[in-house]
Amino acid sequence: MANTAAVMTGLNSIELQDRPMPEPGPGQAVVRVEAVGVCGSDVAYYRYGKIGPFVVQGDFILGHEVSGQIVAVGDGVTNVRAGDRVAVEPGTPDRTCDQCRAGRYHLCPNLEFLATPPYDGALLQYLLMDARCYFPIPDSMSYEDGALIEPLSVGLWGCQRASLRPGDDVLVTGAGPVGLLAAESARALGAGSVTLTDLSEYRLGVAASHGFTTEHSGSPTDRTFDVLLECSGANGVLAAALARLHEAGRAAVIGLSKAEAVPLPLSMLNWKEISISMVNRYNNTWPLGIDLVSSGRINLAGLVTHEFSLAQTAAALDNTSTEPESLKAMIYPQRT
Amino acid sequence: MANTAAVMTGLNSIELQDRPMPEPGPGQAVVRVEAVGVCGSDVAYYRYGKIGPFVVQGDFILGHEVSGQIVAVGDGVTNVRAGDRVAVEPGTPDRTCDQCRAGRYHLCPNLEFLATPPYDGALLQYLLMDARCYFPIPDSMSYEDGALIEPLSVGLWGCQRASLRPGDDVLVTGAGPVGLLAAESARALGAGSVTLTDLSEYRLGVAASHGFTTEHSGSPTDRTFDVLLECSGANGVLAAALARLHEAGRAAVIGLSKAEAVPLPLSMLNWKEISISMVNRYNNTWPLGIDLVSSGRINLAGLVTHEFSLAQTAAALDNTSTEPESLKAMIYPQRT
Amino acid sequence: MANTAAVMTGLNSIELQDRPMPEPGPGQAVVRVEAVGVCGSDVAYYRYGKIGPFVVQGDFILGHEVSGQIVAVGDGVTNVRAGDRVAVEPGTPDRTCDQCRAGRYHLCPNLEFLATPPYDGALLQYLLMDARCYFPIPDSMSYEDGALIEPLSVGLWGCQRASLRPGDDVLVTGAGPVGLLAAESARALGAGSVTLTDLSEYRLGVAASHGFTTEHSGSPTDRTFDVLLECSGANGVLAAALARLHEAGRAAVIGLSKAEAVPLPLSMLNWKEISISMVNRYNNTWPLGIDLVSSGRINLAGLVTHEFSLAQTAAALDNTSTEPESLKAMIYPQRT
Amino acid sequence: MANTAAVMTGLNSIELQDRPMPEPGPGQAVVRVEAVGVCGSDVAYYRYGKIGPFVVQGDFILGHEVSGQIVAVGDGVTNVRAGDRVAVEPGTPDRTCDQCRAGRYHLCPNLEFLATPPYDGALLQYLLMDARCYFPIPDSMSYEDGALIEPLSVGLWGCQRASLRPGDDVLVTGAGPVGLLAAESARALGAGSVTLTDLSEYRLGVAASHGFTTEHSGSPTDRTFDVLLECSGANGVLAAALARLHEAGRAAVIGLSKAEAVPLPLSMLNWKEISISMVNRYNNTWPLGIDLVSSGRINLAGLVTHEFSLAQTAAALDNTSTEPESLKAMIYPQRT
Repeated sequence: MANTAAVMTGLNSIELQDRPMPEPGPGQAVVRVEAVGVCGSDVAYYRYGKIGPFVVQGDFILGHEVSGQIVAVGDGVTNVRAGDRVAVEPGTPDRTCDQCRAGRYHLCPNLEFLATPPYDGALLQYLLMDARCYFPIPDSMSYEDGALIEPLSVGLWGCQRASLRPGDDVLVTGAGPVGLLAAESARALGAGSVTLTDLSEYRLGVAASHGFTTEHSGSPTDRTFDVLLECSGANGVLAAALARLHEAGRAAVIGLSKAEAVPLPLSMLNWKEISISMVNRYNNTWPLGIDLVSSGRINLAGLVTHEFSLAQTAAALDNTSTEPESLKAMIYPQRT
Repeated sequence: MANTAAVMTGLNSIELQDRPMPEPGPGQAVVRVEAVGVCGSDVAYYRYGKIGPFVVQGDFILGHEVSGQIVAVGDGVTNVRAGDRVAVEPGTPDRTCDQCRAGRYHLCPNLEFLATPPYDGALLQYLLMDARCYFPIPDSMSYEDGALIEPLSVGLWGCQRASLRPGDDVLVTGAGPVGLLAAESARALGAGSVTLTDLSEYRLGVAASHGFTTEHSGSPTDRTFDVLLECSGANGVLAAALARLHEAGRAAVIGLSKAEAVPLPLSMLNWKEISISMVNRYNNTWPLGIDLVSSGRINLAGLVTHEFSLAQTAAALDNTSTEPESLKAMIYPQRT
Repeated sequence: MANTAAVMTGLNSIELQDRPMPEPGPGQAVVRVEAVGVCGSDVAYYRYGKIGPFVVQGDFILGHEVSGQIVAVGDGVTNVRAGDRVAVEPGTPDRTCDQCRAGRYHLCPNLEFLATPPYDGALLQYLLMDARCYFPIPDSMSYEDGALIEPLSVGLWGCQRASLRPGDDVLVTGAGPVGLLAAESARALGAGSVTLTDLSEYRLGVAASHGFTTEHSGSPTDRTFDVLLECSGANGVLAAALARLHEAGRAAVIGLSKAEAVPLPLSMLNWKEISISMVNRYNNTWPLGIDLVSSGRINLAGLVTHEFSLAQTAAALDNTSTEPESLKAMIYPQRT
Repeated sequence: MANTAAVMTGLNSIELQDRPMPEPGPGQAVVRVEAVGVCGSDVAYYRYGKIGPFVVQGDFILGHEVSGQIVAVGDGVTNVRAGDRVAVEPGTPDRTCDQCRAGRYHLCPNLEFLATPPYDGALLQYLLMDARCYFPIPDSMSYEDGALIEPLSVGLWGCQRASLRPGDDVLVTGAGPVGLLAAESARALGAGSVTLTDLSEYRLGVAASHGFTTEHSGSPTDRTFDVLLECSGANGVLAAALARLHEAGRAAVIGLSKAEAVPLPLSMLNWKEISISMVNRYNNTWPLGIDLVSSGRINLAGLVTHEFSLAQTAAALDNTSTEPESLKAMIYPQRT
């Protein structure tokens, strides 16, 4: 049985390679990968070979938004069994450091995370991981839904980092996949209202079709908010949006600026006693995400805009970086 | 213009009386009362003349689940204007005590609360209150919906008191109006799952029609939970339900037992480090409740089972206390 | 080199036995045990052979309040080295269950805890544990201080479970070792005031010498409180003390009643919206306890009232269960 | 009876004027002002006539760190009586806005705050305020101690805004009065360790005499921290100090930069999921501050470095702005 992988062999270069079929050790399980979403970080590694301190060295496999079906489980695995359809949490912590001990396993300094050098990702046919990374999804959820639990998790955790309280009026800046899923998260957790901003009429249209209030970034209203979820990473957006928070407003910074330093008007924020929380991925969000999607409280319709086979991985990466009407490109590793 | 009131003139005795038409002072407003839900506490005052330390003295007006339309506003009122359709929060705090200063106005020792002696309730045609008690509702919400924001608030606040976290598996014991609305609240705030228990097949049927998992109280499953919302007030239900919580489980006690003291198995709860929070009404829940109902995240269908005119107030109280297939009786004060 | 242990060979029976000298595996370390405090749970196993579901089977070693000096470390140990004087946290979690993953390792269902059947305790000369259970103490702290970090941890965690806020007026019921250390904890974490109650004039005297306000349990004042730390486990104390809490008061139940069920006046507590949190041991308190003791913010003076050699273990257990002027009996395993 | 005031009649100009003796209305009380600390904001108004949007217009009285003795109380006042020695909280909220209702009275948009235009301050002999602003101090506390409760409150609230947890290792940048009091606050609330940095050897010496670890800002160690309390307001200090926080670190920004915008390295902070909370004054800290000072848990020794009569107000302002070995200048309005 083959295990074909889409391997990044250099900048802007992907080729298919055969990899060994993995065998699950104790506590591990193998998943046949059915869907992998393309993320902006995949594009960044593909184009530039690094993100901050993480540098691609030699052959590298991208992809960390993953779903599939369990095909083999190792000794002692009880949470999944062969045949289960699962969504995959891409990080494995060491479970022994101070951060893990405190319940913040996502900040574990030794976290092994798919498609973050030196750890390969999931753009291959059979993936081996600690079985605790697999979460069964019901038949009502598609593999695409399963893979989308990863970017959804960013939104869910962003709401927690912003200390979202039921009834809060929420501003989400940036209506790409992460912004849309952050908006869906806020609504599903009881936000009073959710407003999305973007420069793209296309994206604002999708946001409106999900029932959100929208504003074009170029012509903001004077409405103010309790919570900001910054998902654009664009220069200046954070500072401008912070100014729209009420007294005691809370912001979660999800979109990462490429700038070395972002100028923030702290004196103004001081007067209103604003809080700003940085967001690094997510903590224990898969069961919640699956519950919210499968019960219809989160709507994923229209998120997946383009589909690709494993052999079309380069095209999928190009699509994500250049196509203005793309939200999420999905790669199907069993289609070669 | 008349202001007819349904007045409790003694135990089990209601008669219609004319009351003066109220004039709003500064910061006040008058509402034409359109719908008043009957609550178990109304029945208790009607049958027994007291609840704990609160004793009815002389003529008394019941009713504290209220909606209506603003007809007159006093000086300085900015949050509502004549013509607004509103839901009514029934308590007015002193705003100066330690509890108010700490943001817990609902625990203000000087709280003036509708239909809690010595303060009259809302079963009359025109009601005068501090304008801050009025919250506009959109046209998409009926007056029945507006009145139901009060019992819904109990559920919403119960979730907060239980420190409900998104993804929690929630057990609601008691599928009467408060239990159903607590279950709706938990779901709207991101609960992973919600299970309702009751002895009444009728009530379990309504719960199932709202999409909740149901269990007959007499034949519980062995499923366990993160959060308990106890809404039955029935003897023994709390202790039995606490035993179904996981480690670190949290319970909110909403239903009040009539017993002097409730025996709780503390040693067993200690091992799992269970938390138990008592619930006294609600704090700042009207805007949230209105947002959740008007956006469709809370479903109030089927809650109002019986309708009465003001002249039928005694029948409405009887219905609530004796009709097994009654959930919420609604009285319409403009129908005399 | 001998490794003498004080072994419980049956109810009310202790004998010295030789045990193998332990060898540290990877991640483990061996401590030469210098001081072991006697706890009420040791006495309960010694007298009755069980506590709740935990039943002593065959030979059993008591003792879980422990300090000593590291004598050997296994591969990969970095937090301690030979020669370090350490306080010992007595529980080792599995680090993989849901509770561990959430940061609540103390509620791990697989927790291996010293002197809790089937796991032996520390009343022997050389103890082998996971090195993460060892926390270095500075030279300014005695081994007695080191062993007292365990009961102090109960107090520190109780304050956290009660959501103690700086400035709170705190009532501690029961002025035994746990009550005194809970009172010290509350003061060190910023309590506005701390009041201790007990029936024993001796214990109240010790409490007063630590600077606490005291009340004889038989003649309570009418003072009220924000927080209750129940440390007596005596019948009726909890219910009476809960009645002394203000609105929004919070109670932590540290002392465990032997009763099957404890009657609580829930209706009365409901009105004030009281919260009750059960307390099971502690979570991540050793570094904090060591900081507070070594900086003088926690005062341990007078806590150790009686000293015993390992051969006198039975006498130490008797002392704890029968001597009215005993607070903490300390056993020194290197004195045979 | 005269009521002499030190009035700012223009930039860098103070003159003594007679003001009417105030009469307390209902709920008010008059305090004979005994001690007023000079704050950097007083100097800013004196030198530049404004702070952000707050502009001095015409005659203006400075001073908001205040203690004194009650000399007259109005109807309905129960919390103080004539003869009480009190510390004064300088802000009076409207008690009716959304922020007040939520318990955040310090963010009330209508807050009337001493010495913040258009509201006069306390540099006069008799001051009239809402009686709720007065908090009795015990005889063991001096009037200087009473006035210092105000800057201490900034430190106490900063700890709360930083979500300080017992055991946290805390870095305080800036060892002026606010930094020292923030450090004292952190220690009194259970910090594991407290390190202060400054450029001034004098200030570091005072910090060391209070038992804190000190570092010269020019030669930082590589130690890292859980919590940052930024009290310097100096350019670049915040960004550099944020880099010294561990994963999940929390910062409170107390010192206000004069810069329009402060560049922050958000990407780096994102990786560690840092939280940054702005701090605007304090909320409900007077009782806590008085408890901590009077019980000896907060040490105010050495804070007041210079003393001035009311007639020497200009000299006191000069001292604060120019004297390198000044921490807190105190003005005694009864000394003319």
